[in-house]
Amino acid sequence: MGFFRPSSRDDAFFQLLADSARQAVAAAEVLTELLASDAAGRERILPRLKDIEHEADEATHAIIHKVNSSFVTPFDHGDIVELAASLDDCTDALEQVGQMVVLYRMDGLMPDVTRQLEVITRMAALTAETMPRLATMKELPEYWVEINRLENEGDVIHRTLLRDLFGGAVTDPIEVIKHKDIIERLEQAADAFETVAHRVETIAIKES
Amino acid sequence: MGFFRPSSRDDAFFQLLADSARQAVAAAEVLTELLASDAAGRERILPRLKDIEHEADEATHAIIHKVNSSFVTPFDHGDIVELAASLDDCTDALEQVGQMVVLYRMDGLMPDVTRQLEVITRMAALTAETMPRLATMKELPEYWVEINRLENEGDVIHRTLLRDLFGGAVTDPIEVIKHKDIIERLEQAADAFETVAHRVETIAIKES
Amino acid sequence: MGFFRPSSRDDAFFQLLADSARQAVAAAEVLTELLASDAAGRERILPRLKDIEHEADEATHAIIHKVNSSFVTPFDHGDIVELAASLDDCTDALEQVGQMVVLYRMDGLMPDVTRQLEVITRMAALTAETMPRLATMKELPEYWVEINRLENEGDVIHRTLLRDLFGGAVTDPIEVIKHKDIIERLEQAADAFETVAHRVETIAIKES
Repeated sequence: MGFFRPSSRDDAFFQLLADSARQAVAAAEVLTELLASDAAGRERILPRLKDIEHEADEATHAIIHKVNSSFVTPFDHGDIVELAASLDDCTDALEQVGQMVVLYRMDGLMPDVTRQLEVITRMAALTAETMPRLATMKELPEYWVEINRLENEGDVIHRTLLRDLFGGAVTDPIEVIKHKDIIERLEQAADAFETVAHRVETIAIKES
Repeated sequence: MGFFRPSSRDDAFFQLLADSARQAVAAAEVLTELLASDAAGRERILPRLKDIEHEADEATHAIIHKVNSSFVTPFDHGDIVELAASLDDCTDALEQVGQMVVLYRMDGLMPDVTRQLEVITRMAALTAETMPRLATMKELPEYWVEINRLENEGDVIHRTLLRDLFGGAVTDPIEVIKHKDIIERLEQAADAFETVAHRVETIAIKES
Repeated sequence: MGFFRPSSRDDAFFQLLADSARQAVAAAEVLTELLASDAAGRERILPRLKDIEHEADEATHAIIHKVNSSFVTPFDHGDIVELAASLDDCTDALEQVGQMVVLYRMDGLMPDVTRQLEVITRMAALTAETMPRLATMKELPEYWVEINRLENEGDVIHRTLLRDLFGGAVTDPIEVIKHKDIIERLEQAADAFETVAHRVETIAIKES
């Protein structure tokens, strides 16, 4: 590292990655609003979540198209594609949770699900703040250490939820099926943010 | 592009990819037959589905072996391997649905599952028609646009099925577990065909 | 192949891969012990399983770091990273089974689950024996043929378990949900060992 990173081409990549991360933040925020609403409100909010997922898809597509049609990229082609794909996985998982909550007509959602989503929202915000720093490669270890800490925090909530769910907090088997699905998809969202951090770390190691 | 693609080596790759896509078509057709049969018929048909899955495995293996032992390939080595792997995922998902239907002794399968499979069968047929066109790179955008449209069509059926399933169409919790598994594995099959289309698009962009 | 493979750098890679495979063996052994214990014993044993999973994570991390910071690697960079990642997936899946058994407060686990784990333990042991042979590339086909055979053996047990589970062996729907999850995660562990074997085969083909 240490050399000057100038070109506007590079900037366009970091911009697109930051856009994609901001879609994940928006998805987490709209999902939070959806969870806090009643059935009618949820039906109304869901299309906004789908729009965000669709925009994230297009952003990912734009990144991959740009990588495949560029001769020079700021990092290894494959690393950028994988980073973009893992950012998209974050938004996808969050949108799927919103869909499940509506399709399953969830009523009486376990309160800790909101705590699980709060941790994920912080992971999303931190990821979006970090993407522009790929241009300078500064303060990246602070990011991945904090993501790792948040992932552990979310994992404790996830395990507590499962322990309670199967410990009698929910007794109707069909409600158990629904809760389990939502809790696990949120955990997959958290894992997706951790994967993003792993890929940033991989890029940072190669650049150092 | 625009340059002449001659060699018989190339042709062998397109042939193997087309073979693999035809296994996915065969899997969709045999699975359709299986779903329409009674319990005894299903037990009799399942081995045919397993044979197809096994042949698709061998075809994939042959492609990966050929890529890894070839110095020259028509496209990037990694892109061919990923395309072959995603074609194999299509057949795998369809075979798993057949297994579930038999192992779970499904009785009274929700009728829309058949509609979900019909859309997938059309995705498979279109994919098989398209593979040979990789030799000339002609009319590929028509293919991925139509796959995308079919995936959306299948997704609407998938969501309707889940909404009905959890809306009281099936009341026995164990039957809900079984249905959910089958419906979601079929959705994964549809996603696998979409992934194939994404990979074809990636190859097309690089070649253009 | 046939050329002399000397350097100590190479040896370090094979050593790290063998370490990672030994973590998978340890995970299978501790999980076997956990399954054979009562509830209190399981709570006591689970942290050991988590420690193993954590060490495997660090081993994988060390391999990826070493690959990304090395100019010369014994095989293709990407192939080593994927091999390390798939070894880690084996240990992860086993640790998740242990977690589920404890979180779900499993009581009256179907006896064949132990048979399913026995096959996986043999896959792990064979994988750990094989990793050092990557240095000489000798007797590798015997390894992947045997892994394939074991995977088929495990698959028969897996299918029998599902057939029994949905055939009335377990009647409480919540117990069905729990069993299904554990049985399928074990099947994913078996698949992960098969993926390791596929990646060894890919490396062997490229080297031949």
